[in-house]
Amino acid sequence: MDGSGSSNEGANGGGEWLRPMDAEQLRECGHRMVDFVADYYKSIETFPVLSQVQARYLKELLPDTAPSKPDTLEALFDDIREKIVPGVTHWQSPNYFAYYPSNSSTAGFLGEMLSAAFNIVGFSWITSPAATELEVIVLDWFAKMLNLPSQFLSSALGGGVIQGTASEAVLVVLLAARDRTLRKHGKTSLEKLVVYASDQTHSSLQKACQIAGIFPENVRVVKADCNKNYAVAPEAIFEAISTDLSSVLIPFFICATVGTTSSSAVDPLPELGQIAKDRSYLIQSLSTNPEYLKNKASQANSVLDFKDWQIPLGRRFRSLKLWMVLRLYGVENLQSYIRKHIGLAKYFEELVISDSRFEVVTPRTFSLVCFRLLPLASDQDNGYKLNYGLMDAANSSGKIFISHTVLSGKFILRFVVGAPLTEEQHVFAAWKVLQDLATKQLGSS
Amino acid sequence: MDGSGSSNEGANGGGEWLRPMDAEQLRECGHRMVDFVADYYKSIETFPVLSQVQARYLKELLPDTAPSKPDTLEALFDDIREKIVPGVTHWQSPNYFAYYPSNSSTAGFLGEMLSAAFNIVGFSWITSPAATELEVIVLDWFAKMLNLPSQFLSSALGGGVIQGTASEAVLVVLLAARDRTLRKHGKTSLEKLVVYASDQTHSSLQKACQIAGIFPENVRVVKADCNKNYAVAPEAIFEAISTDLSSVLIPFFICATVGTTSSSAVDPLPELGQIAKDRSYLIQSLSTNPEYLKNKASQANSVLDFKDWQIPLGRRFRSLKLWMVLRLYGVENLQSYIRKHIGLAKYFEELVISDSRFEVVTPRTFSLVCFRLLPLASDQDNGYKLNYGLMDAANSSGKIFISHTVLSGKFILRFVVGAPLTEEQHVFAAWKVLQDLATKQLGSS
Repeated sequence: MDGSGSSNEGANGGGEWLRPMDAEQLRECGHRMVDFVADYYKSIETFPVLSQVQARYLKELLPDTAPSKPDTLEALFDDIREKIVPGVTHWQSPNYFAYYPSNSSTAGFLGEMLSAAFNIVGFSWITSPAATELEVIVLDWFAKMLNLPSQFLSSALGGGVIQGTASEAVLVVLLAARDRTLRKHGKTSLEKLVVYASDQTHSSLQKACQIAGIFPENVRVVKADCNKNYAVAPEAIFEAISTDLSSVLIPFFICATVGTTSSSAVDPLPELGQIAKDRSYLIQSLSTNPEYLKNKASQANSVLDFKDWQIPLGRRFRSLKLWMVLRLYGVENLQSYIRKHIGLAKYFEELVISDSRFEVVTPRTFSLVCFRLLPLASDQDNGYKLNYGLMDAANSSGKIFISHTVLSGKFILRFVVGAPLTEEQHVFAAWKVLQDLATKQLGSS
Repeated sequence: MDGSGSSNEGANGGGEWLRPMDAEQLRECGHRMVDFVADYYKSIETFPVLSQVQARYLKELLPDTAPSKPDTLEALFDDIREKIVPGVTHWQSPNYFAYYPSNSSTAGFLGEMLSAAFNIVGFSWITSPAATELEVIVLDWFAKMLNLPSQFLSSALGGGVIQGTASEAVLVVLLAARDRTLRKHGKTSLEKLVVYASDQTHSSLQKACQIAGIFPENVRVVKADCNKNYAVAPEAIFEAISTDLSSVLIPFFICATVGTTSSSAVDPLPELGQIAKDRSYLIQSLSTNPEYLKNKASQANSVLDFKDWQIPLGRRFRSLKLWMVLRLYGVENLQSYIRKHIGLAKYFEELVISDSRFEVVTPRTFSLVCFRLLPLASDQDNGYKLNYGLMDAANSSGKIFISHTVLSGKFILRFVVGAPLTEEQHVFAAWKVLQDLATKQLGSS
């Protein structure tokens, strides 16, 4: 319109300010955002993996109050590039090896877009039947992909639901078990309820116990077996249960883990007993039925309402994302994708073994390698400072990002392969970074 | 490549299958999804607002197991159009007047895209400093926009956090209050804790009480005042508290509502007392600190870790969306957007008043109109069948979607204006649909 020769400058949507929702403005701005995102992924390796900003950096860069007048999309993109991106830790970088991965994928990104576009709230079947029904179907697909027993399927007493996070999943299962037990023993029995888990169990269980009001002294944290890659020994759990049963306490919950956070240990599920997850207990704990949400389909009991399977009332159309990922990649490609990451972790493990200054601390199960620099004979702290220093130097370089844990008093480095763009060359380069820094670290010790 | 003259057919990304993540494939597929979404918004009025499918319709249309080989994006788009969209209830349709709105906007959609692109997990400051810092800043902006007292700001003992849903927000506040009281009175006092709310309070409070283990008989549901548009009378709450205090019970939580779900009633906040939300109580209830999440910044206490302010550990970069909405529209436009919806609700209220067959049941406060067809003299059910029939006929027509509630035994229709594309013409057309159906309904009574 202004003859500047560029359609991407100035205001939004053909020279006008952004309206709340307008299909053609959405199209134009959406295309610009797609290009921004694609360019971000194209240049993702040029950024420090771990953000290098200092605390409260952003307060200096942004105003104290919301703008009263609108800004242009171009000005916003400039701010994202200059002010936001430096404060982003790039979880999708091929050089990200910390915690556990949060994989993005093209199919997943498209699923998020479509879910945001429909922007429905799927608390009851009627609020968008496709949302509930697709979730039931794809979670049955998923149960079959994992070879779960048939009682986990919706056709039996099971059926899946996508919780907002793993922490919520742990919490709702704990609540279902708590309320089932309290219905049997009376609600004043809360102080007698006992939970069992190993000391390698994720912190979300502790948080769930806090929320559910389980008494802290009734959370039995059994020491995992350091000779079994920190899996728990079933005898240790059974011993604790026997002791509690001989007093007035009521054992009601065992938490077993497939892939612990620290070292990917796998607790012995079959030995820890049959786990039933009959959905009716969950619904009894979490159901509400106010007048303003009543509707024919729900009253007729002919449909599922996922609001009764979770903490929140509201929920996104999340199954779209899972469905699109399964459809656009197919099970075989997903299998080889996971196997490739495990293979790359194995490759890293071999690199560590080949350097006698290092040790692999626990046997690798999946795509996590637990390793450390061996302490020097003169070391007073079992290698803590040495390995902390190595990690800090690696992360501060911006070249890679790894994290740590502590097992049996050893400070251990965790190297997890899983980012979508990670290839052998990135693993090798990461190893070179670690070797070079180790040489420096040992030289200065 | 194949000379068919269309670049949008066949496989993905220039004739290849989709790789897990590839910037150029993401660009191509992302552009196609943007066009799909823009076309959806362009044609949104052609779909029935409330999905007209029958229970379990999708099971017939989709296979029992996940595909082992990938599909093309084109095949997926076909399935979305033919199998998914018919099962979608179109919350963004300008003819959607049910429950409360779930507004989309172009800026919000762009924010979702960017958040999905970074795909970070912001549990601790270090996992993406910009995510935590932007959230602190924009929630201070938001507190100022709402004119909240200064103790709600991060510079005081307040500071905001975006919870996944309102239900989680209610739950975490209840937990903070519960644990503060239990620390004072001892943890075996749970059975004595009493919660106060009106019978118009949202069901999320009841669910939060179930989760927190509050004894059901200790949840005081005080009848709201039907002469005050169903707001609660402070005297009624204080009376209940006095009675409980004279026994061994411990009052610890009052829930007041600004805009009840049924009728948008506003409880008298100032009379219900000063509400302090000192963040330290929240953090004491929800904090965990496992080794594998420790880091320099957190240990130095120089930063906030939002994991301790919420139920889940994981969290998206949600502040991006709020920031982009505030930046791209500006406060003034958002104010006039809300005022426009309230104006349209006022217009609908006037239309209802002008037709003597109807009554407005409670005075309109914001953008919700509570109304009903007046029962006939011969009616045995106070107009229940008449109004239920009217609602059912309107929703089954696919032309509009409204919902209902019950107040003082009256079955009431709820008409809420708030979808982003709703204009005066849609409100007028909706009223005509209701008038015509009322004529039929009354004729057949």
